[in-house]
Amino acid sequence: MQLARVVGTVVSTRKDEKMVGVPFMVLRDLDLENQLSGGSIIAADPMGVDRGEVVLYSKGSSARQTEMTRDRPNDAVILGVVDQWEVGGVEKYHKFKTITPKKSPK
Amino acid sequence: MQLARVVGTVVSTRKDEKMVGVPFMVLRDLDLENQLSGGSIIAADPMGVDRGEVVLYSKGSSARQTEMTRDRPNDAVILGVVDQWEVGGVEKYHKFKTITPKKSPK
Amino acid sequence: MQLARVVGTVVSTRKDEKMVGVPFMVLRDLDLENQLSGGSIIAADPMGVDRGEVVLYSKGSSARQTEMTRDRPNDAVILGVVDQWEVGGVEKYHKFKTITPKKSPK
Amino acid sequence: MQLARVVGTVVSTRKDEKMVGVPFMVLRDLDLENQLSGGSIIAADPMGVDRGEVVLYSKGSSARQTEMTRDRPNDAVILGVVDQWEVGGVEKYHKFKTITPKKSPK
Amino acid sequence: MQLARVVGTVVSTRKDEKMVGVPFMVLRDLDLENQLSGGSIIAADPMGVDRGEVVLYSKGSSARQTEMTRDRPNDAVILGVVDQWEVGGVEKYHKFKTITPKKSPK
Repeated sequence: MQLARVVGTVVSTRKDEKMVGVPFMVLRDLDLENQLSGGSIIAADPMGVDRGEVVLYSKGSSARQTEMTRDRPNDAVILGVVDQWEVGGVEKYHKFKTITPKKSPK
Repeated sequence: MQLARVVGTVVSTRKDEKMVGVPFMVLRDLDLENQLSGGSIIAADPMGVDRGEVVLYSKGSSARQTEMTRDRPNDAVILGVVDQWEVGGVEKYHKFKTITPKKSPK
Repeated sequence: MQLARVVGTVVSTRKDEKMVGVPFMVLRDLDLENQLSGGSIIAADPMGVDRGEVVLYSKGSSARQTEMTRDRPNDAVILGVVDQWEVGGVEKYHKFKTITPKKSPK
Repeated sequence: MQLARVVGTVVSTRKDEKMVGVPFMVLRDLDLENQLSGGSIIAADPMGVDRGEVVLYSKGSSARQTEMTRDRPNDAVILGVVDQWEVGGVEKYHKFKTITPKKSPK
Repeated sequence: MQLARVVGTVVSTRKDEKMVGVPFMVLRDLDLENQLSGGSIIAADPMGVDRGEVVLYSKGSSARQTEMTRDRPNDAVILGVVDQWEVGGVEKYHKFKTITPKKSPK
């Protein structure tokens, strides 16, 4: 799974019949310091997430394992809203706190 | 899924028998600002899209989940024509409007 | 799918029993201007292609969907010989014509 | 599989019902010299690993082949704790020894 | 498939029960000129290869199609020992010959 922020929506009315009823969200990938890392993806949203939320998403055949996406031509899915993560015991993101990011050592 | 623009076609008469009847379109990947991002892919087209249209496509095993591509050795498929997308409430693409792209902050 | 040129062969006599009888070809990826783009892959060849031919290939589980490759530990397969492709109405490759490539605008 | 170090945890209480009971660990990829190589991934942990441990993980559909992850929308899983690895007969990592890394020749 | 050289081994005693009995080899990717190309992967070895041998490996779900790896959480497998490959009629590798590599034109 990867961490990402929900930043927008995609509207497609003329689509494969198996994708009818699947909402598409625009996600931007986050690194472990909660900074945008450059990548983006359009993912199915079975959860009804809100814009700005941080989520976990899966890719590939695993993206067809939710109830909404089963047997559909879908290759990315949101599977959880993130409350918090930490690296080395240091909180990097918390849904209800503002954490000043530091430059990540690589 | 990824966003892409339909830019051309590929003709292959001598092909695997399971691919007979599957049209191939040339897609160029788009970033969230509706700019070409460098990547390209050849995708099956079950929808009969037009050149110049912006589409969503899936890769991998999910590309075999449309009626046209089931059980075929196909690893990329167009699954929707995009009407519009927005990021942070700002419209980045609309099928019937010209939107002047701005440099995306990364 | 991706476009590639057939440039060579790989010989492996000691191999998984499920791969016996599957010929391996060396492919070099092509960009949309018919130029080598740097990548390469070894693909199963169910079609008996000739060296120098331009082909389409699939990766991943889709590479097991041809008659030759079904249920084999094979992750790339040639699925068509390309006759021609065009981008924006401009022919970029034709099997029986020499087309002088131009630098692609990105 | 890839080598990675367990560096943290992700908490998600609102998640797909099929992911309930699956703990998420933050992994950072390691190169063959036991140095962080830049990549990171969130993986399911069926093993109860400890922070700081070096592990092997699988991606894609293979990440659904453990007892914990079967049929879940999970695309990365920890499948082993690494005791030791060596390259060219030179030990690069040992769980109970400190090995001074050298710059890897590429 | 990709070409790689077998350079080492990974020991993991505490692992997913479905991976018991699967030996892990360290592979370094090779380019078409038989030079290390930077990538590496840990692959299951159903063949009992020797260190230093050049092999073909598969990734993803195809890595579960050998007798040893079926239904296991394994995403990379060695499937053949390479005897020889050639590009454009020029031998680039032969198991029993020393071939002086030349810089590959890209």
